[in-house]
Amino acid sequence: MIRKIEHLGIAVKSIENANAVYEKLLGIAPYKSESVESEGVTTSFFQVGDSKIELLEATNPESPIAKFIEKKGEGIHHIAFDVADIKAEMQRLKDEGFTLLNEVPKRGADNKLVCFIHPKTANGVLVELCQEITDDYTG
Amino acid sequence: MIRKIEHLGIAVKSIENANAVYEKLLGIAPYKSESVESEGVTTSFFQVGDSKIELLEATNPESPIAKFIEKKGEGIHHIAFDVADIKAEMQRLKDEGFTLLNEVPKRGADNKLVCFIHPKTANGVLVELCQEITDDYTG
Repeated sequence: MIRKIEHLGIAVKSIENANAVYEKLLGIAPYKSESVESEGVTTSFFQVGDSKIELLEATNPESPIAKFIEKKGEGIHHIAFDVADIKAEMQRLKDEGFTLLNEVPKRGADNKLVCFIHPKTANGVLVELCQEITDDYTG
Repeated sequence: MIRKIEHLGIAVKSIENANAVYEKLLGIAPYKSESVESEGVTTSFFQVGDSKIELLEATNPESPIAKFIEKKGEGIHHIAFDVADIKAEMQRLKDEGFTLLNEVPKRGADNKLVCFIHPKTANGVLVELCQEITDDYTG
């Protein structure tokens, strides 16, 4: 079950510059910065109500974020939905005909298990499912 | 002050088809459909936690949504933030150097006063401010 918008991911060329812009826009500072080497990104997070804004800068030219910016320019990259049970949700959406980009959940930024859904099956939107990793997680 | 993500707007070619996709994805039906003639759009809204997903289909070729899809394809079109006082927020953001696309708030879908911020001043993101219209509003 999808419970809320967990975050919105925005691809930016320079996270330093974008942090300054979004600090002004949102009137708050990012609460965390984090690099995810496996994804080739540096991220920062802003809390907005019950959701977050994630800024993403590529750390290498092969990063999905570098390719996205090359093709489309800076802008909204993905929307992430919070789910209680990511494996159950992946199975449900697979059964509904969505194309999953991950066979099994992988570790993402901000202490999450994540799975992406192909934009072609969601009207051009890159959808991320994410589940908070709890202390007893051993997967 | 920006309080939360009010909604996320997704540009789609056919709202009928997209409604079916997002009903499956989100596991819920849209709670409302609405046309905004001044914007040349038909919309539908899904409630997700404390925020909404708005699907937008163009009703004529001059609609901003038609132009967006022609240029970029279907996908996330804008992010809307809920504000308590849109005029104060417009002034604050103008003073901070953001380019506003509306001089004064205009009426949008879902009983809102809205103002857009130019994507060039927000890292490629079309940002909408929106304030709920209350019963005593006379503007």
